[in-house]
Amino acid sequence: MKIGFIGTGIMGRPMAGHLQAAGHELFLLKRKSPPPQELIDGGATLCETSAEIARAADLVITMVPNTPEVEEVLFGPDGVASGLGAGKTVIDMSSIDPIATQGFAARIEALGSAYADAPVSGGEVGAKAASLTIMVGARPETFDRIKPILELMGKNITLIGDPGSGQIAKVANQIIVALNIEAVSEALLFASRAGADPAKVREALMGGFASSRILEVHGERMIKRTFDPGFRIRLHQKDLDLALSGAKALGLSLPNTASAQQLFSACVAHGGADWDHSAMVRALETLADHQVA
Amino acid sequence: MKIGFIGTGIMGRPMAGHLQAAGHELFLLKRKSPPPQELIDGGATLCETSAEIARAADLVITMVPNTPEVEEVLFGPDGVASGLGAGKTVIDMSSIDPIATQGFAARIEALGSAYADAPVSGGEVGAKAASLTIMVGARPETFDRIKPILELMGKNITLIGDPGSGQIAKVANQIIVALNIEAVSEALLFASRAGADPAKVREALMGGFASSRILEVHGERMIKRTFDPGFRIRLHQKDLDLALSGAKALGLSLPNTASAQQLFSACVAHGGADWDHSAMVRALETLADHQVA
Repeated sequence: MKIGFIGTGIMGRPMAGHLQAAGHELFLLKRKSPPPQELIDGGATLCETSAEIARAADLVITMVPNTPEVEEVLFGPDGVASGLGAGKTVIDMSSIDPIATQGFAARIEALGSAYADAPVSGGEVGAKAASLTIMVGARPETFDRIKPILELMGKNITLIGDPGSGQIAKVANQIIVALNIEAVSEALLFASRAGADPAKVREALMGGFASSRILEVHGERMIKRTFDPGFRIRLHQKDLDLALSGAKALGLSLPNTASAQQLFSACVAHGGADWDHSAMVRALETLADHQVA
Repeated sequence: MKIGFIGTGIMGRPMAGHLQAAGHELFLLKRKSPPPQELIDGGATLCETSAEIARAADLVITMVPNTPEVEEVLFGPDGVASGLGAGKTVIDMSSIDPIATQGFAARIEALGSAYADAPVSGGEVGAKAASLTIMVGARPETFDRIKPILELMGKNITLIGDPGSGQIAKVANQIIVALNIEAVSEALLFASRAGADPAKVREALMGGFASSRILEVHGERMIKRTFDPGFRIRLHQKDLDLALSGAKALGLSLPNTASAQQLFSACVAHGGADWDHSAMVRALETLADHQVA
């Protein structure tokens, strides 16, 4: 299939590579930070504009940093929308605002094309290993059609519902991950300060109702003080911004998400924008003048 | 072995039953709310005071509601301490204050007896099935000696460290459980209010970094609106009180534990003291004028 891929950065580059390796013909943007040489060597076509990509390809995938960039790529001058004809498909795999996404989908569908939002989790490691978790918002017929393409990049691929709901699931995921990190931070800090060995406490708790993937992975990072990313605090902050601005727009109160975001800000204030998100525990340690380990 | 068992309520009754069934000789308190008939029929000896129990038995187990009751039973008039000789063992299986526990242990050890704190999780179901998780604070030689007794009542039995550390682990467990419930509540409420099916979102998230026992069990309760206990909010409030008063004494700040406790209080204000703790989501729903399902 002819696939346009806009955004071949840390995540997009290996993802596009998997598509090319499977025999798909890639169309990339020439003027964006120079496209990866291995994709050009593999036969990718370079285009001057996003509109040109949309005219040449059957399917356009976007993988860019934030909501304004998706909007610019899709609807800006010479954007994807201006090159779309009927019967094409746009998949936005960026992690962006779910509410804005619903609007983007409606505008693309009005042009006679299909839209899917398919944000991922699993990071650079998952992108390289083609083992990403992919949460999809799409019409069922669109999902059936794009699923074989998504399967080249990920493993756990779930249709959540209509367009926008993939992004909703991604935000929900990032809320839970942040708050579970916060939970493990408070618990291990309490245990350590009260005089117990946090490693023993973590071990004892893993079999019961307190068990979680975060206790397992991030709990260990807190105890071993290994805060190299992993997943960077500044990226998780971006996700919680989506949760909090979404909550405000929807008339919701998310008190612990707000609190977790403030703790991330405290990390950033201490130079931690690029620490792993498990380093949220450091913000609590600063408040307590005691370290978990 | 001759075992005194003080506190044969909802939890203690089946636990004492397992000990008796394994051939141990029980000593119970006559004046406490009448001891269970099946234990008397099974040959238990009734004693007038806790001191008399301590004189008669080699091992005394306490399973009572809170810190003041443990203190009263151990150190009050005609309490366990006044009947202890050298070489006996006290195991407190109640869930109480870890810092007070360190003091109780020191006082019992000063009398020449051994002390272990061994709080449990798993509730009435676990007590009846002898499948409780037991977190133990004890000297290693005491742990080795009491382990066969604990194995009659539970399955996951972990020595955390010195006396007091079993209670520390239990508080840490209850912090994580409460905050993971809060996390799942915020995430599912966001997802639902934004227009996605919370059941689909939960399903999609179960395979990734957001996965937890709470997402699995309590997330389902929130979606199915099944808030019969389970574990009662008023009991979880008692545990978070230990966390928060402990934190204050230790010079710690636990912002999200404090927030979760306030949400439990909001449930109680709406008649929910005996709702299952997963009903914490209702407090957030009240703030939002929207229900998860």
